[in-house]
Amino acid sequence: MRLHKLDKVMEEEGLQCSVVLSGATIFYLTGYDYITTDIGNAVALVYCNGIPTLIVPVLEKNRAETKVGDKIEVLSYSYTLAGDKIFKGSLIEAITSRLEPDKKIGVDIVNSSSSFYISFKDKVSSFVDISKKLAVMRAIKEDDELELIKKAGNITTSAMRIGSEKIQNSGITEREVAGLIDMTMRNEGAEDYAFPSIVAFGENSAFPHHVPSDKVIRDNDNAVVDIGARYRNYCFDSTRTFIKGNSDEIKKIYEIVLQAQLEAIDTVREGVKASDVDLTARKVIERAGYGKYFVHSTGHGVGIEVHEYPAISPASNDILKENMVITVEPGIYIKGKFGIRIEDTIIVTKRKPIVLETTYKYM
Amino acid sequence: MRLHKLDKVMEEEGLQCSVVLSGATIFYLTGYDYITTDIGNAVALVYCNGIPTLIVPVLEKNRAETKVGDKIEVLSYSYTLAGDKIFKGSLIEAITSRLEPDKKIGVDIVNSSSSFYISFKDKVSSFVDISKKLAVMRAIKEDDELELIKKAGNITTSAMRIGSEKIQNSGITEREVAGLIDMTMRNEGAEDYAFPSIVAFGENSAFPHHVPSDKVIRDNDNAVVDIGARYRNYCFDSTRTFIKGNSDEIKKIYEIVLQAQLEAIDTVREGVKASDVDLTARKVIERAGYGKYFVHSTGHGVGIEVHEYPAISPASNDILKENMVITVEPGIYIKGKFGIRIEDTIIVTKRKPIVLETTYKYM
Repeated sequence: MRLHKLDKVMEEEGLQCSVVLSGATIFYLTGYDYITTDIGNAVALVYCNGIPTLIVPVLEKNRAETKVGDKIEVLSYSYTLAGDKIFKGSLIEAITSRLEPDKKIGVDIVNSSSSFYISFKDKVSSFVDISKKLAVMRAIKEDDELELIKKAGNITTSAMRIGSEKIQNSGITEREVAGLIDMTMRNEGAEDYAFPSIVAFGENSAFPHHVPSDKVIRDNDNAVVDIGARYRNYCFDSTRTFIKGNSDEIKKIYEIVLQAQLEAIDTVREGVKASDVDLTARKVIERAGYGKYFVHSTGHGVGIEVHEYPAISPASNDILKENMVITVEPGIYIKGKFGIRIEDTIIVTKRKPIVLETTYKYM
Repeated sequence: MRLHKLDKVMEEEGLQCSVVLSGATIFYLTGYDYITTDIGNAVALVYCNGIPTLIVPVLEKNRAETKVGDKIEVLSYSYTLAGDKIFKGSLIEAITSRLEPDKKIGVDIVNSSSSFYISFKDKVSSFVDISKKLAVMRAIKEDDELELIKKAGNITTSAMRIGSEKIQNSGITEREVAGLIDMTMRNEGAEDYAFPSIVAFGENSAFPHHVPSDKVIRDNDNAVVDIGARYRNYCFDSTRTFIKGNSDEIKKIYEIVLQAQLEAIDTVREGVKASDVDLTARKVIERAGYGKYFVHSTGHGVGIEVHEYPAISPASNDILKENMVITVEPGIYIKGKFGIRIEDTIIVTKRKPIVLETTYKYM
């Protein structure tokens, strides 16, 4: 229960009521998790004058009550079923039934679909957008959160080791490696994956978002493995580039990406601009003549969501703070040949960052 | 390439331009898939006067060109990189750069976030919402789509068989069964999962959206397994309830759910109201005295998305048509005891539906 963090946001904004729509933020505040199976806006937390109401579809009633029912009232909604604590109608109708419309209301509107927004704005005379404040609220991790992220990191590293071994097997496909990695993460304690596992061999690795295919690894192919476990609702995000055999061309590019990553990590500390971390990585790659092949930003925050505040990108205005958790993941992608990406999840401190579960010895 | 289907929608609505935002619909129309790794609105298809432009983030430029570059112009957008076919700016700016604003424009607005909608509506004087038409367009499957769904069904059935065997092992956990199932789907050809696998033992199975945990199966526990493969971007969705040992109480409820499912499937054919299919299942369960324990709708369409048009629910106005693919999945969930769900993916025909990859002999 971290509702006191929402109190603080509301105090700063002078609000009497809040509506939280992000499943991740609802988990952060209440402990009720409706994240991985979330399809659009299905749940909400209404918080008025210190009284929280968790609103869930009726099929989630029992699970929500089991998770938070002793601390928070759970109101479920349904068009067909009636009963105790079951509201007949839509999510939006259930939300407005618990809002005090003459009060100043804050809404987590960025985490809504356009359909939700269009319908909701007609039911509430006015509201303040508190999405950004809620995202920032989650960025600085508490000790218990850091422990869960570290555990997700341990699990991810076990799976990465399996990946590094299996790509040495002749005849193995991207899909088979991804399957072994996924099973390993489950066996080691993950309840889900932070995102769909990426395993890309040879020229497929030139696509940053490749989907594992039937492609068989060949001698002297590289393999990009980008994976992350979800452990008790906390994510990890890690990428390694391996090689089956040897290739001087691949190794040359690998060293550039590695240098970009290490130099960028070296700049990370409390008070630094996120855009400067990006710039550091980008400059190393530009200087080596591969600037146009670095086609994404350098990193992102990690927590209950695998992509969250802050953004480590050229356009970011975010400032790093102690106990933020971020990735640093430069890459170079050469169409028709190969791609290289190296990514770590790290904890920002006042001095040198803590790099979680890393080893550069894989390649 | 199914752009002629978009032509038909535009002709019906008298449109000169369309903007498609759903990754699934863009795949349907063009063959470019940005589905499983999609985080919010990142891609768009702009189609004006018969000329399509696929708009993607710069990190997807090469992959998109490889998929459709010989047929469709790919325009990528970036804040930092410049180059051929790279637009400097945001997705919305790239979209409006290719729109003809004085024309009648249709937009797939339901598949946008509120942030996209708020920013986009200020840049375009007016537009027609074509989301529903695009959803309906995808509902009736062509032969090649049916083949892919069948193949996804074969893969899912192999994994289900593994699940049915493994729950007989003493000491096995929900997570371990889910891991074996996931690996099996990858090995059999799935490039991803249609949704996060659900494996729920005993009292956990009373939660329809349970997340696999460390729970070990006990003698006479039931196990709900709800899984689906994604094969070449087509989904499958299947649920079986198994039992380790014997329990007359569980079997009694199982028979009610099975009867509800079989009677509902029996009503499915061209021209039938989707709500009547739901009602048929609901009546069987209500008559047996368990109406309040059936806490979700009876089914949904399945295709490139695991939940798509039509809705098989009490409030649905949708009418079933030949070659729609839907699920029928009634359930009974008794808190603190157990839940039962039985789900098949079926093809609607003019007569009896084709039930894909099913056997009731598991329990």
